[in-house]
Amino acid sequence: MTGRDGGADLAPIGENSPIVILVRPQLADNIGACARAMANGGLFHMRLVAPRDGWPQERAWRTASGADRILDGLTLHDTVADAVADLHRVFATCPRPRRVIKPVMTARAAAGALHEIETRGLRVGILFGPERAGLDNDDMAQADTLVRYPLNPAFDSLNLAQAVMVMAYEWWTAADETPGRVLMTNETTVAPKAQVENMLRHLVDQLDASGFLRNAPKRPGMVRNLYHLFQRGEVTEQELRTLHGVITMLSLGRRQRGRLEEDDPPFSGEDPTETSAPQH
Amino acid sequence: MTGRDGGADLAPIGENSPIVILVRPQLADNIGACARAMANGGLFHMRLVAPRDGWPQERAWRTASGADRILDGLTLHDTVADAVADLHRVFATCPRPRRVIKPVMTARAAAGALHEIETRGLRVGILFGPERAGLDNDDMAQADTLVRYPLNPAFDSLNLAQAVMVMAYEWWTAADETPGRVLMTNETTVAPKAQVENMLRHLVDQLDASGFLRNAPKRPGMVRNLYHLFQRGEVTEQELRTLHGVITMLSLGRRQRGRLEEDDPPFSGEDPTETSAPQH
Repeated sequence: MTGRDGGADLAPIGENSPIVILVRPQLADNIGACARAMANGGLFHMRLVAPRDGWPQERAWRTASGADRILDGLTLHDTVADAVADLHRVFATCPRPRRVIKPVMTARAAAGALHEIETRGLRVGILFGPERAGLDNDDMAQADTLVRYPLNPAFDSLNLAQAVMVMAYEWWTAADETPGRVLMTNETTVAPKAQVENMLRHLVDQLDASGFLRNAPKRPGMVRNLYHLFQRGEVTEQELRTLHGVITMLSLGRRQRGRLEEDDPPFSGEDPTETSAPQH
Repeated sequence: MTGRDGGADLAPIGENSPIVILVRPQLADNIGACARAMANGGLFHMRLVAPRDGWPQERAWRTASGADRILDGLTLHDTVADAVADLHRVFATCPRPRRVIKPVMTARAAAGALHEIETRGLRVGILFGPERAGLDNDDMAQADTLVRYPLNPAFDSLNLAQAVMVMAYEWWTAADETPGRVLMTNETTVAPKAQVENMLRHLVDQLDASGFLRNAPKRPGMVRNLYHLFQRGEVTEQELRTLHGVITMLSLGRRQRGRLEEDDPPFSGEDPTETSAPQH
């Protein structure tokens, strides 16, 4: 399957990164979907053991969505024993406990162990069973470590590509240092506090002028609420410019409407979203 | 879509567990696959915004693999605004940063936040965009929190059901207390050390009788190697019974073969797997 063009550049391939071994996969669509999931999570080596419909299958390249390099480079094996012959360690995903005594890891712990194995320069494979039945007892006997995902026990049958996705995702995440929560600030400029204060003074001035804050005992609390609202997180300079414009235009409108609105009740303090249509 | 029979019992549904909102999904197959992934991870509420091919679509029930209850119970909406109108919080999965300032969480951090929101009795939804394009800027403006999975940046386009799978898996895992590594011992009995010792003595006795350990200076190291091998982890009583039988039968065989083997070299200390066929 060499010489195909197209397919995404999938980033550097770790020489000893774990090998995904699909055991007797039934559907070529799933083989391609597995390749895509592998590329998502930075796994690039695939082996097939006795795919039901033979190999290659054009459909696999269609569902791989550009992860062609993985399909182009995979190797084909008659038996699990042949597929793992050159490996030092073999993990196997297992949906249910079997009558064996063997270490069982969560996908997350397994991902950590896989990185450690890679660091030691050992080659490791992960067995995934056929869609319908999963790995059989002989397949499991080839593995030194079992991997079992924590999932809803009332509904724990995973689609094959989903099983590969979870493992690939954990593989990537184990080496990822993205902080759990960040503020996305690209292509925006966070306003310094003086600019926020400037906008809030503009707002309060106009609210004073409009009579909105005429209830003297309530005024401090109402002003504080406005401050809290706009101090809840970062605000961009562009958002502040927009708010200045909003305040100016609304107060202009009120002045133009003159004294017609004198009888309008001031802000009641109730949440206006309770009765309005969904906000945009 | 009520009155269907079949479909798995999906375990209790959390009243306030997060709602998966598929925005303008294109393929009914994917909607069903999303339902399956949700059930895997213990998410049971689904909403559809303007599915391209209309709703219901029989194909979705086929790919749901028994997660019928989710499809039977989903609600249909014309707009994102309508789909989130009764929710208190809205998360959105976003493949790439946009020109906004908003909290962005990993799937793992988001799962923790979702549990916290559920605990507070608030309703939260997670937006997933259409297969081809993902969420557009107006969709993202409906969300208060963005979720971005750490994945291979050279290949980060996820299949829709895969995106739902990762989030559902993290949702389940955030509340799961499975230890990372356990020994699977169900339906087996771990042997106490005396039984292991008993088997090893049997083995060493027979090896002494066979002449395998006749090199006196090497004997202690060779015996120690055997002890290390069989003390590497837990051994079951059944495995020990099998080993006793193996030792007995092999030594019988050797006695029966008599003195024919006298010239065979004793165990050389080399790893026999280096040159042999893959082990079973």
